[in-house]
Amino acid sequence: MSDKQKKPQKLKARLPRGFVDRSAADIHATDEMIGKIREVYERYGFDPVETPLFEYTDALGKFLPDSDRPNEGVFSLQDDDDQWMSLRYDLTAPLARHVAENFNEIQLPFRTYRAGYVFRNEKPGPGRFRQFMQFDADTVGAPGVQADAEMCMMMADAMEALGIRRGDYVIRVNNRKVLDGVMEAIGLGGDDKAGQRLNVLRAIDKLDKFGPDGVRLLLGAGRKDESGDFTKGAELGEGQIDRILAFTEIASAVGGGKLEADHEREIAQLTACRALASPSASGADGVNELITIAELARAAGYGPDRIKIDPSVVRGLEYYTGPVFEAELLFDVTNEKGEKVVFGSVGGGGRYDGLVSRFMGQPVPATGFSIGVSRLMTALKNLGKLGEDEVIAPVLVTVMDGDVESMGRYQRFTQALRAEGIRAEMYQGNWKKFGNQLKYADRRGCPIAIIQGGDERAQGVVQLKDLIEGKRLAGEIEDNAAWREARVAQEIVAEADLVAKVKEILAAQAEDRRRARNV
Amino acid sequence: MSDKQKKPQKLKARLPRGFVDRSAADIHATDEMIGKIREVYERYGFDPVETPLFEYTDALGKFLPDSDRPNEGVFSLQDDDDQWMSLRYDLTAPLARHVAENFNEIQLPFRTYRAGYVFRNEKPGPGRFRQFMQFDADTVGAPGVQADAEMCMMMADAMEALGIRRGDYVIRVNNRKVLDGVMEAIGLGGDDKAGQRLNVLRAIDKLDKFGPDGVRLLLGAGRKDESGDFTKGAELGEGQIDRILAFTEIASAVGGGKLEADHEREIAQLTACRALASPSASGADGVNELITIAELARAAGYGPDRIKIDPSVVRGLEYYTGPVFEAELLFDVTNEKGEKVVFGSVGGGGRYDGLVSRFMGQPVPATGFSIGVSRLMTALKNLGKLGEDEVIAPVLVTVMDGDVESMGRYQRFTQALRAEGIRAEMYQGNWKKFGNQLKYADRRGCPIAIIQGGDERAQGVVQLKDLIEGKRLAGEIEDNAAWREARVAQEIVAEADLVAKVKEILAAQAEDRRRARNV
Repeated sequence: MSDKQKKPQKLKARLPRGFVDRSAADIHATDEMIGKIREVYERYGFDPVETPLFEYTDALGKFLPDSDRPNEGVFSLQDDDDQWMSLRYDLTAPLARHVAENFNEIQLPFRTYRAGYVFRNEKPGPGRFRQFMQFDADTVGAPGVQADAEMCMMMADAMEALGIRRGDYVIRVNNRKVLDGVMEAIGLGGDDKAGQRLNVLRAIDKLDKFGPDGVRLLLGAGRKDESGDFTKGAELGEGQIDRILAFTEIASAVGGGKLEADHEREIAQLTACRALASPSASGADGVNELITIAELARAAGYGPDRIKIDPSVVRGLEYYTGPVFEAELLFDVTNEKGEKVVFGSVGGGGRYDGLVSRFMGQPVPATGFSIGVSRLMTALKNLGKLGEDEVIAPVLVTVMDGDVESMGRYQRFTQALRAEGIRAEMYQGNWKKFGNQLKYADRRGCPIAIIQGGDERAQGVVQLKDLIEGKRLAGEIEDNAAWREARVAQEIVAEADLVAKVKEILAAQAEDRRRARNV
Repeated sequence: MSDKQKKPQKLKARLPRGFVDRSAADIHATDEMIGKIREVYERYGFDPVETPLFEYTDALGKFLPDSDRPNEGVFSLQDDDDQWMSLRYDLTAPLARHVAENFNEIQLPFRTYRAGYVFRNEKPGPGRFRQFMQFDADTVGAPGVQADAEMCMMMADAMEALGIRRGDYVIRVNNRKVLDGVMEAIGLGGDDKAGQRLNVLRAIDKLDKFGPDGVRLLLGAGRKDESGDFTKGAELGEGQIDRILAFTEIASAVGGGKLEADHEREIAQLTACRALASPSASGADGVNELITIAELARAAGYGPDRIKIDPSVVRGLEYYTGPVFEAELLFDVTNEKGEKVVFGSVGGGGRYDGLVSRFMGQPVPATGFSIGVSRLMTALKNLGKLGEDEVIAPVLVTVMDGDVESMGRYQRFTQALRAEGIRAEMYQGNWKKFGNQLKYADRRGCPIAIIQGGDERAQGVVQLKDLIEGKRLAGEIEDNAAWREARVAQEIVAEADLVAKVKEILAAQAEDRRRARNV
């Protein structure tokens, strides 16, 4: 064997596509955000319940959003007993399984929330990951639209708890039955036409993107895009297409109205809408439910600036059976192409009366809402609404001498600081190059370095470096704090006074930060 | 097609073996526990960093604990590009990958912590799950044993932060090099003997279970258990076995000594131990490191009652290269067989200098500690140290009339309570059976029910039922609160006074609970 062959190949450190590591800043921000949402959900009387990441594939069903490919798009593997298991692709299907499995022990209505990772085995792209976090709330065993109305109010409250101002968000509400009614009215009712209905919904969903003319093509024979790619259409006749586009025109007018529209005008518009969704009984029903949601929301003080009835909303999930909701952020952001666009959806949900009953011999009505955690976090970062929980880097106790006795002493200093609740660490790298220790403190953002060499030890004192003030004096941050008189950036104190002095310097630094923020 | 065939088969709601759902109580308890540990880690200067659940299988390596079967015991599947990916089986291997992948951006020493799920594709059993949570802390880029000593101190602090009393826990410390030294001294050194060394370690690990005679068999030809199952041995010669058992005898004496043993005796014992680990240089080295850890711990105020040097500890993980630690809980619990046993290990760790360097052209020393979250939680429940963060069930606003106007009013009551931070919900089930609403309130443990029928509405009042007091008056909880004079279990107040009255009743209930606890 040659030397070359014998040498072990160095392993490459890399992650599979679509998976990412999370930094401290990201984790702190997520925790802060989730904590605020959780507080709202708890106040609404919801309790946490979680399911594991695996489910039997058949229990998940073929309800993958925006996909009619059963079992495609999920990560699946066979168990020892040859049964297929999959990683959950959302938090709703596992909840349905949980409720059905524990139906006799569960007290309905069952009001729960959960945050957790879900997985999509799809091609990743910018902002599209194969593992991401959702935060869901669900009420199972709630047949009335008052439960849907409550979901919308809770979402509005969650947005405001996160610091998103009124006017910067809106919860849009539609009803799956309204669109189904319109389709039924043009002969697309019945189980055998389910696939065609889905294609119609997908076509309507492209209204923002392609306009009425593009949607007309998608409802008909199909549409060829600029690159020449052809999308097959829903193959409706001209009369059918006209009816659908007439509806979407009115629906867009309702949904696109001013957010501060008065309640009476809102009801009048919806009544006009009902005329088009009829003659289907289900369509009229759907509009009536929307009117009830509007009235309940208004009665509880939520105007159309927060909860907006919008019959033009289409959510792709096949399992929704009634009201559907979408939380939209209305402020502008700049996209990759440099264009200003509305930030858009950060979550959605709706009524899914069929999902639990798949397991049961009886209907189990349910409604829920799911927040896309990383997308909402991106939005909050844009708004500067995260990072309020400031994390200060630890005080660094440097190591000048590496003998056991000296290290024991450094360790004691460190523990004394920790005992007072101050983040602190003794330098744990190779202590022999002292310059590396200060470089580490600098890069880490340590507020203070503590130094004790032989001379100081003999005198029972320690040296404290105020690293923030040191930087300022070195001219690096003179901009917004220059008005202030300089502190002493380096001090020598008795060992016994170490903790008190560290506290004093940290307090002065906190005061500086506070002032700098208020300049 | 017959009717029977056409009827869709009802789906069975069940979870794959070894996976479990988590209840609200479990989630609250875990969050409380993790929060307390995190506070300790943050104070020590550690920051959170997380990795995704998937890694490339080769990046995880074949370091599965207690198993030399590469890629067995993990959940693996092939990606689109045919590369094998696996769900992580611990949090250490992914951290090593993370450090190697981001080596140029990371500032060493890199001090991080993370809690997360790990997966083992093994046969589940009582208390053994295929998905469970670990909570790890690691210092990467720390060559000296002072970093190992710090890990032990941090674990001791974590145990105490959780309310575990001194004397009820101990952090046991050994050094992989000591045992390797003993093995080297009997001719088991060198890469080609790695497998045999592992078998010897596993045999020693059975000392508590099988005693010296059983271990003698496992070190030799093998051992047959009562059921007749034969475990193949390490096939050492008699002389080799004698040397190893001589070592384990002394090691057990050191580790088994009184926890309050004085420091001088401890050092003397370890010096005796060193004689047996020599003539191997590495063995002597290992003992010297243990002595340094003891001295550093003692200097920082951690006696052998908290951090105990114990050369008899064997951790099965092949990747440890130096000091190894184990957090052991010392109080008795009753096992499934009704026997009193020491609770035992709730976590462990050690130095793994080889794990990051697999990816790198250079050595990257590291040390870490992993807590088994659910096992520690079981322990804390035994000690009554969880559940301090009391969660009160929501106030229930009942629904007497289902018209939109009435429901709007009930919803307003509910929102008014929430606005004051009180958990509250309007009944969302089928409101028509009023008895079901009160049954729900009872099973859910709601503290108060609010009722408004037509008569009350006409007078602008609401009825409040104190459900806790109601239960007490009904004689169900008369035991520990009977001394107290009865409150009024049912009251009628003006709508405007609703929130104030609810607050008053909740405060009275809280006072009752406080008194009941102190009886």
